[in-house]
Amino acid sequence: MALAERLSNLGTETAFAVSLAAADWASKGNRVYPFHLGDINLPTPANVVAAMDRAIAEGKTGYCAAAGIAPLREALAADVGSRRGLPYSPANVVVQPGGKPVIGKFIQSVMNPGDSVLYPNPGYPIYESMIEYYGGEALAYRYHQTDKGFAIDLDHLRSRITPRTRAIVYNNLQNPLGCESTPDEMQAIADIAIEHDLWVLADEAYYEMRYSGESTSIAALPGMYDRTVILYTFSKKFAMTGWRLGAAIGPTAIAESIAKLNTNDESCTTHFVQAAGVEGITGSQDGPKAILAELQRRRDAAWGELVQIDGLVCPKPESTFYLFPKVTDVMARMGFSDLASFATAALHNTGVSFCTRLHFGRPQPGETEFFVRFAYSGLSVDDIHEGLSGLRRWIESA
Amino acid sequence: MALAERLSNLGTETAFAVSLAAADWASKGNRVYPFHLGDINLPTPANVVAAMDRAIAEGKTGYCAAAGIAPLREALAADVGSRRGLPYSPANVVVQPGGKPVIGKFIQSVMNPGDSVLYPNPGYPIYESMIEYYGGEALAYRYHQTDKGFAIDLDHLRSRITPRTRAIVYNNLQNPLGCESTPDEMQAIADIAIEHDLWVLADEAYYEMRYSGESTSIAALPGMYDRTVILYTFSKKFAMTGWRLGAAIGPTAIAESIAKLNTNDESCTTHFVQAAGVEGITGSQDGPKAILAELQRRRDAAWGELVQIDGLVCPKPESTFYLFPKVTDVMARMGFSDLASFATAALHNTGVSFCTRLHFGRPQPGETEFFVRFAYSGLSVDDIHEGLSGLRRWIESA
Repeated sequence: MALAERLSNLGTETAFAVSLAAADWASKGNRVYPFHLGDINLPTPANVVAAMDRAIAEGKTGYCAAAGIAPLREALAADVGSRRGLPYSPANVVVQPGGKPVIGKFIQSVMNPGDSVLYPNPGYPIYESMIEYYGGEALAYRYHQTDKGFAIDLDHLRSRITPRTRAIVYNNLQNPLGCESTPDEMQAIADIAIEHDLWVLADEAYYEMRYSGESTSIAALPGMYDRTVILYTFSKKFAMTGWRLGAAIGPTAIAESIAKLNTNDESCTTHFVQAAGVEGITGSQDGPKAILAELQRRRDAAWGELVQIDGLVCPKPESTFYLFPKVTDVMARMGFSDLASFATAALHNTGVSFCTRLHFGRPQPGETEFFVRFAYSGLSVDDIHEGLSGLRRWIESA
Repeated sequence: MALAERLSNLGTETAFAVSLAAADWASKGNRVYPFHLGDINLPTPANVVAAMDRAIAEGKTGYCAAAGIAPLREALAADVGSRRGLPYSPANVVVQPGGKPVIGKFIQSVMNPGDSVLYPNPGYPIYESMIEYYGGEALAYRYHQTDKGFAIDLDHLRSRITPRTRAIVYNNLQNPLGCESTPDEMQAIADIAIEHDLWVLADEAYYEMRYSGESTSIAALPGMYDRTVILYTFSKKFAMTGWRLGAAIGPTAIAESIAKLNTNDESCTTHFVQAAGVEGITGSQDGPKAILAELQRRRDAAWGELVQIDGLVCPKPESTFYLFPKVTDVMARMGFSDLASFATAALHNTGVSFCTRLHFGRPQPGETEFFVRFAYSGLSVDDIHEGLSGLRRWIESA
């Protein structure tokens, strides 16, 4: 029985193969340090769990509105709006089973087959997958490493725009790079969007996951409110990755379109999980503060270990829970010419499991440097020290 | 900012408009009897809720595999397989956030743009919506009322098949009709699928929701296992509509395709909700038995009231929680020439809210009879008697 041709355009998260390799290595009795997972091994705050239990006791186990329950839409409009200085109302908010569904629903809502959409590379692989799956041309834009992190190659980005370009995916506070735009860079992206009349998907999954400074949203720049859809997620701030709760927040016309997709795709997001989300936003903020403080300790531990490795270049991000060091010199010194071999050897010699640049999009023409990604959200500070000091000893002994 | 053209092909569940009208009428201080909702106002069994609480306490709040957690895939393969006499393994099972997502993911996986897919009309409106949204031609097949229920017009169905027809959606134990196939009818559908090499989506949402007799699956007929995807849902049996838990069960190649769609669309289904599903299937069955017994009492109450109405013709289904009476004569006697006016008048005169045939697909050429749908799953036996006896008095006084 033949399957449909569209499936040949569907990408995936190849990082799951890293999980399988790590699980296989662990199953043979080896210690594994799981730096490949963008997950959080901390409990969801107790007040959020208690709110869910109350909702179930109150009978909130039936269907609810496709766009989400009114109290959650109200809470998100107020909270997301006030943190960005934007006047969102519940009509701008469409609840989703996670942040990820916003990507595909945004692409479906703004891009016709044959149109093109700009997306970050290295970047979250689902952007490219969804653009190509829905018949568009995925236009990668690139970054270069700076003293402080990474910067978008704006000239290259501009050079890729054509009359068929409809949208740009903009993931400030970036996975996997951990970087954020300067005000000038964000303004340049906004100027490009306005000049070429582009929609913007602002993936702000890490907006509140920062250790210093303040986040700003591209949606708040002049001329951007009416062309920007914000991807919001509960996954990081509340350690709720497996709960599947997020939202699309944007102009009412596209919000209505996305709600209609909800009706067709999954009816609604789990009813009582939405009630828990209301408590997360409006209740005690002690839980998210403690999560963020712990993640900062982990960042400091992981970064502190990695920068001791001779030849490894690693900016220290103030956001996300990723480190994206350049390992070109390390690999050359050890005799590795490809990232996959380096990662496999690291796993088998030290138990340290990580993703590489190859898990975040196809390498772009002219790329000569090698990068890997460490997610420090899923290990204790002690395990981070243990794992990464072992990695350092292995590299230094080579 | 223009939206994508594909959205003009996206349908919806117009039944939500009935919910709004009912809520509006209730907000003015009127009593409403909500027979329009295919939801269940009974609590989810306590052992299922307790299993979810244990899963959260055990830290099952992070991401899990896109195809679902292994214990749930194993439990579903064993349970769904043994009830149908089929050898399913976990590789055949892909967990979903509800039964509904199976519809769109099946269509995406088997139908190319320009292909056609057969679907039941009257039927669940999302079939037609997803076929047309993904660029296919939606071929309605029809039913006629019999003494015992409704039967598929097989000659008409056969006449609609073309070389571009790829699949048939088959919803035995049917929403909204409440009907089921005779063995001969099911075999005829299987013969057609085999003769024309069609995929079959077997929407078996109500497979275990029956008051007498035994369900059989078209997937168990010779030659059908390799071409059938079963839509399974926890929504009805366990009163878990708002939990969003279901599964696609079928050949491994299409299961893998659907799992890849999961990775792109929502990462995974809520982790701890899946753990609750394992308890539902493998734990005490007292909860589902009590739910079914209560639904049977409601069916008996609703059917007993409706058949007292002069001129109304209502089969007594042994499955689902719907009654689909013919109201042609009633409407003629009362002077109504369209279903929407009749339904609105019933709401405003009696508080009884229901969907009509028009909420389950476009009327087909030559349709002259009028039908409405009563869902009895969301009202107590007392409220059913109160509401429907009021409806009868209103009709008889006209």
